[in-house]
Amino acid sequence: MSPHSLCDMAAKQVAILGAGMIGDVHRRAAVLAGAQVLGVMASSAERSREVAQAWGIEEAYGSIEEVAESKAEIVHICTPNASHVPYAVALMEAGKHVLCEKPLGVSVEDAQHAAKVAQDTGVVNTIPFAYRFHPMTREMRARVQAEEFGTVNLMHGSYLQDWLLNPKATSWRVDPKAGGPSRAFGDIGSHWCDLVEWVTDDRIARLVATTSITIKQRPAATAATFSAVESAAPLVDVETEDTALILFRTANDVAGSAVISQLSAGRKNRLWVEVDGMHQSAVFDQELAEQLWIGSEAGAQVLVRDPNHGSDEQRRLSKLPAGHTQGYAQCFENYVADSYAAVAAHDGNGQVPESLPTFADGARAAEICDAMLRSAASGEWVSVGL
Amino acid sequence: MSPHSLCDMAAKQVAILGAGMIGDVHRRAAVLAGAQVLGVMASSAERSREVAQAWGIEEAYGSIEEVAESKAEIVHICTPNASHVPYAVALMEAGKHVLCEKPLGVSVEDAQHAAKVAQDTGVVNTIPFAYRFHPMTREMRARVQAEEFGTVNLMHGSYLQDWLLNPKATSWRVDPKAGGPSRAFGDIGSHWCDLVEWVTDDRIARLVATTSITIKQRPAATAATFSAVESAAPLVDVETEDTALILFRTANDVAGSAVISQLSAGRKNRLWVEVDGMHQSAVFDQELAEQLWIGSEAGAQVLVRDPNHGSDEQRRLSKLPAGHTQGYAQCFENYVADSYAAVAAHDGNGQVPESLPTFADGARAAEICDAMLRSAASGEWVSVGL
Amino acid sequence: MSPHSLCDMAAKQVAILGAGMIGDVHRRAAVLAGAQVLGVMASSAERSREVAQAWGIEEAYGSIEEVAESKAEIVHICTPNASHVPYAVALMEAGKHVLCEKPLGVSVEDAQHAAKVAQDTGVVNTIPFAYRFHPMTREMRARVQAEEFGTVNLMHGSYLQDWLLNPKATSWRVDPKAGGPSRAFGDIGSHWCDLVEWVTDDRIARLVATTSITIKQRPAATAATFSAVESAAPLVDVETEDTALILFRTANDVAGSAVISQLSAGRKNRLWVEVDGMHQSAVFDQELAEQLWIGSEAGAQVLVRDPNHGSDEQRRLSKLPAGHTQGYAQCFENYVADSYAAVAAHDGNGQVPESLPTFADGARAAEICDAMLRSAASGEWVSVGL
Amino acid sequence: MSPHSLCDMAAKQVAILGAGMIGDVHRRAAVLAGAQVLGVMASSAERSREVAQAWGIEEAYGSIEEVAESKAEIVHICTPNASHVPYAVALMEAGKHVLCEKPLGVSVEDAQHAAKVAQDTGVVNTIPFAYRFHPMTREMRARVQAEEFGTVNLMHGSYLQDWLLNPKATSWRVDPKAGGPSRAFGDIGSHWCDLVEWVTDDRIARLVATTSITIKQRPAATAATFSAVESAAPLVDVETEDTALILFRTANDVAGSAVISQLSAGRKNRLWVEVDGMHQSAVFDQELAEQLWIGSEAGAQVLVRDPNHGSDEQRRLSKLPAGHTQGYAQCFENYVADSYAAVAAHDGNGQVPESLPTFADGARAAEICDAMLRSAASGEWVSVGL
Repeated sequence: MSPHSLCDMAAKQVAILGAGMIGDVHRRAAVLAGAQVLGVMASSAERSREVAQAWGIEEAYGSIEEVAESKAEIVHICTPNASHVPYAVALMEAGKHVLCEKPLGVSVEDAQHAAKVAQDTGVVNTIPFAYRFHPMTREMRARVQAEEFGTVNLMHGSYLQDWLLNPKATSWRVDPKAGGPSRAFGDIGSHWCDLVEWVTDDRIARLVATTSITIKQRPAATAATFSAVESAAPLVDVETEDTALILFRTANDVAGSAVISQLSAGRKNRLWVEVDGMHQSAVFDQELAEQLWIGSEAGAQVLVRDPNHGSDEQRRLSKLPAGHTQGYAQCFENYVADSYAAVAAHDGNGQVPESLPTFADGARAAEICDAMLRSAASGEWVSVGL
Repeated sequence: MSPHSLCDMAAKQVAILGAGMIGDVHRRAAVLAGAQVLGVMASSAERSREVAQAWGIEEAYGSIEEVAESKAEIVHICTPNASHVPYAVALMEAGKHVLCEKPLGVSVEDAQHAAKVAQDTGVVNTIPFAYRFHPMTREMRARVQAEEFGTVNLMHGSYLQDWLLNPKATSWRVDPKAGGPSRAFGDIGSHWCDLVEWVTDDRIARLVATTSITIKQRPAATAATFSAVESAAPLVDVETEDTALILFRTANDVAGSAVISQLSAGRKNRLWVEVDGMHQSAVFDQELAEQLWIGSEAGAQVLVRDPNHGSDEQRRLSKLPAGHTQGYAQCFENYVADSYAAVAAHDGNGQVPESLPTFADGARAAEICDAMLRSAASGEWVSVGL
Repeated sequence: MSPHSLCDMAAKQVAILGAGMIGDVHRRAAVLAGAQVLGVMASSAERSREVAQAWGIEEAYGSIEEVAESKAEIVHICTPNASHVPYAVALMEAGKHVLCEKPLGVSVEDAQHAAKVAQDTGVVNTIPFAYRFHPMTREMRARVQAEEFGTVNLMHGSYLQDWLLNPKATSWRVDPKAGGPSRAFGDIGSHWCDLVEWVTDDRIARLVATTSITIKQRPAATAATFSAVESAAPLVDVETEDTALILFRTANDVAGSAVISQLSAGRKNRLWVEVDGMHQSAVFDQELAEQLWIGSEAGAQVLVRDPNHGSDEQRRLSKLPAGHTQGYAQCFENYVADSYAAVAAHDGNGQVPESLPTFADGARAAEICDAMLRSAASGEWVSVGL
Repeated sequence: MSPHSLCDMAAKQVAILGAGMIGDVHRRAAVLAGAQVLGVMASSAERSREVAQAWGIEEAYGSIEEVAESKAEIVHICTPNASHVPYAVALMEAGKHVLCEKPLGVSVEDAQHAAKVAQDTGVVNTIPFAYRFHPMTREMRARVQAEEFGTVNLMHGSYLQDWLLNPKATSWRVDPKAGGPSRAFGDIGSHWCDLVEWVTDDRIARLVATTSITIKQRPAATAATFSAVESAAPLVDVETEDTALILFRTANDVAGSAVISQLSAGRKNRLWVEVDGMHQSAVFDQELAEQLWIGSEAGAQVLVRDPNHGSDEQRRLSKLPAGHTQGYAQCFENYVADSYAAVAAHDGNGQVPESLPTFADGARAAEICDAMLRSAASGEWVSVGL
C-alpha cells in the first residue's frame, strides 16, 4: 500500500498484446501501478476493437507494426508462446521496453536471440517469473544468502496442476506449433527451475529426465488456459508431455529432483520447493504463499509474511498487514511495478529493483527445457546449455 | 478477471476520505473497478494536498463541505470511527453514494441515525463487511441455504490478532473518543458476528459477555493501525477492551460462542467460523480463505475456490483460476465493485448484487456491540437490540 | 521404550472392572506396564467368565465383594459412571489401590466423598485425565511454569465429537441414572477443564454456561461408547446436554471460553486448547498430539515430540523417536505406568511421578460440572465449588 | 481393541534377538499380541543376561545356536543388518518361524538365499514393512484395487529424516560392513518402494539414480539409531549415501520419483507417497497416518481412520475409535499380530491375513536397492532384478 508507488512514475503509457486470462492479469497490474493502458492487440483487428471497448481504452492494434509505431513506452506481450520472440524483437528494436510472458521462446535459439537483442538495445526486458515476487520467496533467498540454512545439500519439490486431467480439455498450449515442444515443463517446470536457481544462487548443471503423455489424443480446438469447458473438436495426437520428472546435479554438485505434472487431480497450482541445508530446511508452497516453513532438528518455524518483520525485500514487497493474504494478484503486481521501476531507472529515476527476471533468465529456462527434452529422448544424463 | 467490469460503469468519479492503510486499500479497489479517483481528504488540508500529489489525483479537500460540494458521485469514508456518521449523513444528504468503513457509528443511536438517513435519502450505502466477499463464504452461505449442512445446532469461533500485544503499541482505535467504547469487539468482533449471521440467516438474540483490559495503560499518541512502531508518548489509561468473549443464543435458539482478542501472539488476522449442522459442519478460516472445510461423519472435504465449480455466487466472485490465491485485496475489490454495481443499478444499469452489507447491517453491528458492553457491565444475559 | 519400566515393578496383580472399549484400553496398558491381569468383573457373572476366557486370565468376579477379597493389589474401575464411587470406596476401604475412570462421581457429594476416603485410606488413587500424559502437554505446562509465554491473558478452545450425531445412536452415557446429570460436559468438557487448569496452574473461579439438547429423543437401549450401531429401541426423552458452552474467569482473573459438543460433524475427538500469554501463545490439539504450536509476533514455531529435545517431562514420556507417532494408546499407557509407579513408591520403591491426576482432581471436575449445570439452569454467573 | 486377539493364539513362546530401540518395539508388540517372551540375545552373553533381567524374562542366549535349540517357536531378529540372513537361515532351518528386521540382507544374493530357504522350509517368514499396517495405507490400496482413482499416471514422494544431520552423529548403519552398501535407501527408501509397489500392485521396472555423501567423515563409534548423542570417536570415511534420488518407470510404464534423505532438517520420519490417477489422487503421509488425502478436480477429501467406515482391511486394523490416534506402535503391533496369526494358520488355526510382507518382499527390496546403486555408479537407467 505504498502511496509513493504512483508519484514515482508519472503515468507510463503501455500497450498490451493478448486479451486472454493472462492479458487481463497484466492489465490489472498495469492500472494499479499507475500506468495508462493506451491500447490492446488481440487475435484479430476486430477482436482488438472489442477488447479496447470492453477495457475502456483508446487504441486497438491490428498488427505488431501498429504497436511498434504507437506512443506506448512499454509493451506487455501476452500472446501464445510462438509469437513471443518475433514480437519482442520487433518491439525492442523499435525502442519499446518489453514485459514478455514466458516461455520467452519455443526454442533455445529463439530465446537466446531475444536475449541478445535485449542486451544490444538496452531496453528494459522482463519475464514474469512471478513467484520471485512473493515476499516469502524473497525471505527464503535472503536466508540462503545469509547462510542461515547452512550448506545446501538437497533441492526437491514439484509443480502439480490438474486442469488438463479431462481428456476432452485442450488449449493452444497442447499444440507444439503454438506452445512449443514442451508443455508441462515449459509452462510450469520452468517456474520451478527458475525459483530454485534464484533462491539458491546455484545452477542446474546436468539432468536426467523422463516424460509421459498419458492422454494420447485431445480435441484440436483451442480453449482458454485453465478453462474446464470441454471441446468437441476432432481429436489429434498429443505431442507435448503431460508430466516431466527430472533428477539433476547443480554447479555446486548438489542433487535435486522435480516432479512436474498437469494430471494430478486435486492439485490446482501447487508449486512446492524444498531446499535442505545442513542447519535448516525451508519449504515454499505457492498455494500457502503467506508463509515459509523452516525446519530444524528441534522442530519447525512457520514464518508469516509481515511488513514489520523479516528481510528487507520481504518487507518491501509486503503491501498488506500480516494475516491479510496478498495472493497471486499482488505477487504479479509486484512484478509489474518493479518492471516499471526499472523503466523509471532507465529514464534516470531511482534504482533498478533487485532480482528482476530478464530475457537472460528466459533464455536460461529455454536451455533447461531443451536439456530436459534431450534427456527424455536419449535416456542419458545431459548437460544444460551445451 | 472480468473484462466487462469496466465497461459496465463508465468511470464513476469518487472521493476518498482518509489516507491511512485502509484508505489506500479503498483507492486501489476503486481504481481497479474502473473509477476515477477525483479527490482525497486527509487529516488536514495540507496533508490532503500531499496525499493528492502522491496518488496523482486532482482534488484535495479541506473539509467535509468541500467533499459534499465536489463532483464526486461516490465517497469512501475511511477516517477514524467517530467521524463516520457525521460525514456519512452530510454526504448522503448531499446526494452522494457512500461506502463507509466500519463501525458505522460509535453508538447505537448514531448508527441507527445513519441507517435512517440512508433509507430516507435512497442513496447507495454500504459497509465493508468484506469477508462476505470471499468466494468461499458465499459457498458456505449457499450450502446453508440449500440445507446441505442440515439444521444448524451450534455456531462458534474466534477472531484473533496480535498487533496490540506490545504495551507500547497504540492507535487511535484505543481511544474511545476516536474509536468508540468498544475496541476489539467493535473492530473485529463485528466482522465475526456479521459473517455468522449472514452465513446462517439467523440472528443473535441474546448474549452474555466478559471483557478484559490486560494492558492497563498505553501511550496516548496515535499510530497507524497494524503498525508495530512503538510510541514514547505519555501513558494514558486504556478504557477499551483487549479481549471480549461472548456466549449467545439465536432467534432459532441455536447456541453460539465467539472469542475476540487483539492479544493473541502469532495470530495475525485469524477470523475463524464454524457452523455445525446435523449433517455436516463447515469451517471458514480467513487466513486460508481459498478453502472451505466441510466435516461429516465419514471424514472431511476441503473445497477449493474455483471459478469452474460450486455455487453461482462463489463462481461470480472467483476472479482467478483455482490455486492462484485471491487474498484480501481481491475480496475487498469484490466489495467495492459490487457497491459500484449497486450505484449503476441505482442509475438504471443492471441489478443490485446479492448480499451487499448496508448501513442497516452497520446499525445491527452497533446493536450487538452495545449488548456486549451492557452484558460485560452487568454480568447478565441481555437481549440484542432492546 | 524404557527397558527399566518392567523391572521396577515386579508383576503387580491387578483386576479390571468393566469389559467395554475402555476396559480393554486399561487391560492393554496394564499388560504393557508389566502387570499380571488377575481377574475381571463385567456386567454379570456369566459375562465376567466369558471375558476372562477371552482375555486368557484366571479370575471372573460376580460382585464387588469378590474383587475386594481378591489378591489384586490394584483395581481399574471401568464401569458406567454411577458405579464409580461406590466401587472405589469399597475397594479403597479394602486396601486396594484404585485407578478409576472419570467422571469420579455423578454428583459433587459423591466425588468429594471418594476423594475424602482416598485421603483417609492413603491408597494410591488416580483418574485417567489421560491427556496430561501426552508429552506435548507436559511441554506446554513446563513452558508456562518457565514463564516463556509471559503472563497468561486468555484461555480458550473446544472439545468436539460427532459420535452422537445420529439421532438413533445412543449409549448408557445418555441416561442420567447411569451417566450422571451432565453428558457432553461431564464426559469431555471435564478433560478440557482439567487440562487447562493443570497446564496453567490456574483455576476456573466463576463461570456462565448455556447448554442445548438438540436431539430431544433417543433410543433407550444401551450401546457401546463410540459405537455407530443404531438402536431400534423405544425412544425416550434425552435429559443430558449435547452441547455445553462456558465463559469463565480464573482465580487470576483471566478470561476463558470453552465449546463442548458431541454433535459436530467431522470432529472425532478434537480437544483443542489455546493459552495466550503476553509473549507467546500455545495450542495443543489432541488429534495432532505430536506437536505444540507456539505463536509469537514474528510467526509460529511447531515443536515436535522428541525424546532428544525439550523439557524433562516431555522427554520422560516420549517413548518413541520423533516422527513415530505415539498416539492415544501410549498416552494412556503413560498414565497407567505412572499410576503403578506411584504404587511402587507407596511400597517404598522410587518416587511418585509428577502430575498424576488423583481423586481430588476428580472431585474438582465434579465441582466445575456442577457449576456449569447450575449456571445453565439459572442463567447467572456462578462460583465454582460453593 | 479386539478381545479375541488373545484367545486365538494360546501364548506363543518367542525369542528376541537384539535389544536396541527396535528390539524393544518388537518385545512390546509381542507382549500385546499375547506371546510369552521366553528369551533374548543381545550383543554379548553378559548383555543378554542384563536385558533378560531388565525385561523380566527367563532366558538369555549367548549364541544363535542356543536360540535355535530353545523352545521358542517364533524368533524376532532385530540385530544389525549384516547378521539378518545368517541368523534367519539358521533359525528357519531349525524350524523356527522368523520375523526379521529389514533389510533382509546386505546383498541381493543373501536376500534371495534367505527367501529361498523360507520357501523351502515353509516356515512363516515376515519382514516389518510396517507401514503396510497403517489402516489408511490399506484404505489407499483398497481404493486402487476398486479403481476409484482411475488409471494411475504418476507415483511420487519422499522419505525424509534428519537424525544424521549432525556430522558427529553416527550409527552402525553408517558402516557398510554392518549396515550394507546402501544406507538411506536401504533403510528408508526400501519402505517407500515397498509401500508404493504394494499400494499400486505395480512394479518398479527400470530406474535411474543419483546419490550424495554430504558428510564425508563421521566418528567410527557405534551409536543407537535415532540417538542424538554425539560421538568423539576417530573419524572414518563415510561410504554409504546420505541421500538417494530415483526416477523410475513401472511394469505398467507409469513414471515415478522418490527423494530419500537422512539430512533434511526438521523432517523426522516423513514418509510421503502420492499416487495420481486419472480420476483422483491420493496422499499418505506417515507423520499424519490417521488420514488419507484424496484429491479430485472439485477439491479434496480427507478421510480419517475409523473402525466404522471404509474398507474391510482399514476397519480390521483400526483398533481405536476415530480421533484417538493409533500411531506407530499400533501399526507395528498390527504387523506382529498378523505375523502370529500366520503362525496360527500354519498350525491349522484360522487364515493367513492379507498383505503380510515376506522374505520374498525382502529380496525384492534388495533388488531395487541394488539397481539404485548400479545406476548411481553408472549414470544409466538400469533394470531392476537383472
